Amino acid sequence: MKTAAIIGGGVIGGGWVARFLLNGWNVNVFDPDAEAERKIAAVLTNARHALPMLYDRALPAEGTLRFVSSLADAVKDADWVQESVPERIDIKHKVLGEITDNAPAGAVIASSTSGFKPSELTEKGARTVVAHPFNPVYLLPLVELVGAPDLRANAASIFTSVGMYPLEVKAEIDAHIADRLLEAVWREGLWLVKDGIATTEEIDDAIRFGFGLRWAQMGLFETYRIAGGEDGMAHFIAQFGPCLEWPWTKLMDVPELTDDLIKTIADQSDAQSGHLSIRQLERLRDDNLVSMLRALKARDHAAGAVLNTHESALPHPTGGTALRTVDRIVPIDWTDYNGHMNESRYGQIVSDANDGVMAAIGADAAYVKTGFSYFTVDTRIRYLAESKAGDRIVVDSQLLEAKGKKIRIFHRMLDQTGAEIATGEAVMLHVSLETRRTCPPSDQIMAKQEALVKAHASLPQPGPAERL
Amino acid sequence: MKTAAIIGGGVIGGGWVARFLLNGWNVNVFDPDAEAERKIAAVLTNARHALPMLYDRALPAEGTLRFVSSLADAVKDADWVQESVPERIDIKHKVLGEITDNAPAGAVIASSTSGFKPSELTEKGARTVVAHPFNPVYLLPLVELVGAPDLRANAASIFTSVGMYPLEVKAEIDAHIADRLLEAVWREGLWLVKDGIATTEEIDDAIRFGFGLRWAQMGLFETYRIAGGEDGMAHFIAQFGPCLEWPWTKLMDVPELTDDLIKTIADQSDAQSGHLSIRQLERLRDDNLVSMLRALKARDHAAGAVLNTHESALPHPTGGTALRTVDRIVPIDWTDYNGHMNESRYGQIVSDANDGVMAAIGADAAYVKTGFSYFTVDTRIRYLAESKAGDRIVVDSQLLEAKGKKIRIFHRMLDQTGAEIATGEAVMLHVSLETRRTCPPSDQIMAKQEALVKAHASLPQPGPAERL
Repeated sequence: MKTAAIIGGGVIGGGWVARFLLNGWNVNVFDPDAEAERKIAAVLTNARHALPMLYDRALPAEGTLRFVSSLADAVKDADWVQESVPERIDIKHKVLGEITDNAPAGAVIASSTSGFKPSELTEKGARTVVAHPFNPVYLLPLVELVGAPDLRANAASIFTSVGMYPLEVKAEIDAHIADRLLEAVWREGLWLVKDGIATTEEIDDAIRFGFGLRWAQMGLFETYRIAGGEDGMAHFIAQFGPCLEWPWTKLMDVPELTDDLIKTIADQSDAQSGHLSIRQLERLRDDNLVSMLRALKARDHAAGAVLNTHESALPHPTGGTALRTVDRIVPIDWTDYNGHMNESRYGQIVSDANDGVMAAIGADAAYVKTGFSYFTVDTRIRYLAESKAGDRIVVDSQLLEAKGKKIRIFHRMLDQTGAEIATGEAVMLHVSLETRRTCPPSDQIMAKQEALVKAHASLPQPGPAERL
Repeated sequence: MKTAAIIGGGVIGGGWVARFLLNGWNVNVFDPDAEAERKIAAVLTNARHALPMLYDRALPAEGTLRFVSSLADAVKDADWVQESVPERIDIKHKVLGEITDNAPAGAVIASSTSGFKPSELTEKGARTVVAHPFNPVYLLPLVELVGAPDLRANAASIFTSVGMYPLEVKAEIDAHIADRLLEAVWREGLWLVKDGIATTEEIDDAIRFGFGLRWAQMGLFETYRIAGGEDGMAHFIAQFGPCLEWPWTKLMDVPELTDDLIKTIADQSDAQSGHLSIRQLERLRDDNLVSMLRALKARDHAAGAVLNTHESALPHPTGGTALRTVDRIVPIDWTDYNGHMNESRYGQIVSDANDGVMAAIGADAAYVKTGFSYFTVDTRIRYLAESKAGDRIVVDSQLLEAKGKKIRIFHRMLDQTGAEIATGEAVMLHVSLETRRTCPPSDQIMAKQEALVKAHASLPQPGPAERL
């Protein structure tokens, strides 16, 4: 098991703790702030709620979290050290120097800085790569990696293993990439508030009801490529480029942050969001992000593709004689107005469990690509207990019958205590995806499914009230 | 039935055609371009694929689309006129003047302009309000409304009725609000490409794997409010504000769009997206947007809340003696690797149809708020035919039994031809949401459910092979 050392708590440090801990790493934290443990606990509560819901397979068991009283103690056995201390170059030099002196030679040392370039961080001899994340660190995949190519490469493979998307920035530059874009919008937003054109809420609405939706799945340039139509990007620039010299682009000096402007923004923000506490806003944001990320995951696009890559590296469910076909967390988007998992999601779990049985008899994703599959023709689900967002659910599946192209499967859905929360029976027929009609499976699959029926004959059989 | 006149086709005009037509308006189009009909047909193909999938209830029947040969003919009976002609003030004056002269006095006249302020458009006497939409107009809810308050108010109610979110901009300003923010990012993006820091793809990744996801559900200010923690917005500005004077914020002059820079961007964009045609990119974008918007819809947040408001105003399904409990389009996020609606979504439709029966016996959303509901305890679904994204599905439901707290429901799921694609039977028990245990429903509900069983006794009864 690997060990991460997190130097500096706070929102970003806490996000790093969560990202590594929930992916099965041991984590040592060093932060002289007496409040660090409380602050990190708050981030972990949010992360434990949200991160496991991103996946359709359970994450590995959490590692061990230790708060230690010295930097040297935190880093001495670390495979990974992440520095997130205040953005002052003298503090960065001191802390990164100490880390370099005390961490194992093979450890990756990364800085969360947005304000400094790698060349500035290393000028006193410290070894480090910039790894700049985005809040909430436990949910958003982006991490900007800046620094020496070999350090970037080492860091990138570790970030990928904890489900992140390392963006290697090949030239160092103040603020890296994303913060430059954010800064530009922030500056324009301040002008709009200062000049009384729009409130903070109206500016937020102009973003989230429009281009914010575009940018969550494609970025700026790909979106504009589409706007250019069949004539492409050069045509778009020809159309849109001249606007850059129009008068509104001249408003580019920095608005002075007077007390008045700060008060205006703070008051407008209170009017917009003050009815919710920061904790409530965080939960709202996280549940929205989980739902949208899961939507992109189903599309295998953008951040959703990152999730799928990570999920495929998560451990497969394992059980006893029965097939352990599902081991997962109930996500927020599966719950309904009754405050529990909607009945159709029991059906989703049965569907996923059917896929698990198909894989066990050789009818996996690769087989489906050859043009054959199984279609469900009949299902019965008995609902025995409620399940809530965040609950862990496993399914033990058994193959009851396999007669040529027809198979009959029985599932027991269990909660984290091992109690049965539902049973499901499904009848499936082997089909050609070309003709969309039934046909016999290959001899190989036939042999596997018959063997599985034999192996499962010793399991407890479902009673008549559980059957179709 | 209301009539919209769309003056000027192209991508934006075509998007307006789709937005109104698919919401049941008649639409007249005037565009002297011989290609307009072909271009609008392409937009409509995309819109017919995507827009109906946003909702869990069918849109009204499409209105009638007419291409007419004169502006006067297009606008003479219009309730709504939308001008989307090229961004030249002399053309705008001419076209808006002709519209004002020929449209009914009560018609709303709106301009899609991003480049002109209402005071500029009206300086020759034309009557108009700016209604600036965002591509794709048939999916993104945002429309910026600028102009005289009474014109804005009239326009706002119409936009709400076609599912959009009108953002009333109270002071006119060059580029309104959203384009100013977009412009700022575009300018910074051009610098990054020009200086060789990042490619178009890397910039897009910096957006879509990070802050783009945040902005699709909250905007800039609410996101930063969270970053400020319990100390709020003023604290955040104190932390982040000084960055505005850091060196990277000085890069604010406009990069010159030389042929070299345009070629660099076009080449990088080809490398990033050139393997897909614009049509494929549009479909990819639309399917991503539909999936994310539906995720937000399930959360009833941001753009998802706009969808729910619009959906609640859509016509309720109506049938014969049986209850028509569902009338909807199969959305893209309901399909699976077999290229058809996943089995669990048949279960989703059964669940929604159960809700429809509950509403019919008085156990609707308002009743659930009083602390009582029905929980499903047993379900059987027989799958008779496949269904694909975009298919329209209706469900006719009958109440087979109602014995105190236990009801038994039977559903027939039909495709657009009236053919049965599935049947479902469900047993539900009346529960207290406080104790999570069964209890008898109110006398009122008891009476309603018994009356419904009687009314449905004359319907064809399900056979034994269809029953639990």
